[in-house]
Amino acid sequence: MKSEKGATPKSSYHHGNLREALIDAGLNRLEDGRRGEVSLRELARQVGVSVNAAYRHFANKEAVLSALATEGFLRFDQAQKNAVQSQTDPEQAFLELGRAYIRFARQNPALFRLMFGRFDEEPVDEALEQASRTAFQTLLDSVAATTQLTAEDPAVKILALRAWGQVHGLSHLLLDGQLDHLGDDPMILIDAALKGATQ
Amino acid sequence: MKSEKGATPKSSYHHGNLREALIDAGLNRLEDGRRGEVSLRELARQVGVSVNAAYRHFANKEAVLSALATEGFLRFDQAQKNAVQSQTDPEQAFLELGRAYIRFARQNPALFRLMFGRFDEEPVDEALEQASRTAFQTLLDSVAATTQLTAEDPAVKILALRAWGQVHGLSHLLLDGQLDHLGDDPMILIDAALKGATQ
Repeated sequence: MKSEKGATPKSSYHHGNLREALIDAGLNRLEDGRRGEVSLRELARQVGVSVNAAYRHFANKEAVLSALATEGFLRFDQAQKNAVQSQTDPEQAFLELGRAYIRFARQNPALFRLMFGRFDEEPVDEALEQASRTAFQTLLDSVAATTQLTAEDPAVKILALRAWGQVHGLSHLLLDGQLDHLGDDPMILIDAALKGATQ
Repeated sequence: MKSEKGATPKSSYHHGNLREALIDAGLNRLEDGRRGEVSLRELARQVGVSVNAAYRHFANKEAVLSALATEGFLRFDQAQKNAVQSQTDPEQAFLELGRAYIRFARQNPALFRLMFGRFDEEPVDEALEQASRTAFQTLLDSVAATTQLTAEDPAVKILALRAWGQVHGLSHLLLDGQLDHLGDDPMILIDAALKGATQ
């Protein structure tokens, strides 16, 4: 924000939260088209600022994509926390967490793919890594609540990884149309699989 | 094969199995670079035939990619069947099936992504769909063997979907570097998760 109040007060006046506005535009753009189509130039145009103003927030397109993925993990984790917070039964909360995972992937397919596809570049964006770690911690906490163990227990990590693998895989299979020829509504199949996993 | 013996006997003489040679070249190319880089022109050059000769086997690049994915599913299913055939205990066979899945993804990351990413185009290539269905049947059979049920039982389908989701998700998480910051060797974590799943 500080730099925004520097050289171009006018655009900062209209866009005190220009970074947020660019990220919002990017998230919309992402689900509109193909990942390759997100460009700083295009986002600046959509938000109504100069490309230079946009560049004060993001060094390049890669930085934008990492910021979108980070925002994705933050929203995803919020969705996870919302899903479990009203649950009193840990098993039911764990099931709701799985459902929230699938729902997020289904509602934000391009963002979902982007979020998990941003870790093969070195170095991984620090904010992104932190946001992803926070989301994993929510899973660890939920798994631990279904056991007599703490979230730090190695066994909880394995249980969490099993659950993560499962919802992550089901999400990918759903998004990739792999469940369309199994003879039942994919969402009903997925819910049955998730329920089975908590038994 | 028949069409090959038509217009250009010379290239067919040298490449009686030109289609196979092009697919092999495509599979090599796939793991070399990015998916976008597989082109019929390039494959024809690698195999040493004219682009026209290659076009007699594949109408366009999409047809090549579907053929690569189909070949991927055939090899993948063979790897699955190899993994279970020497096992006498159904539970152990099921674990080996999961390990084979992860191993295939790890050894053929680009092919793995291609295989499961070719179903969002309509209509889905028929040979591809058949090959993928055969691979799923191998999973159904293995799951059924661990139960008192037949492979056609709806409950087996749900159990298979749980297992598929899990190994598919773990594969994606592994390939996308998501397991690199969990404090342990990703392959050890995955194996522990797979073992847990069979208990």
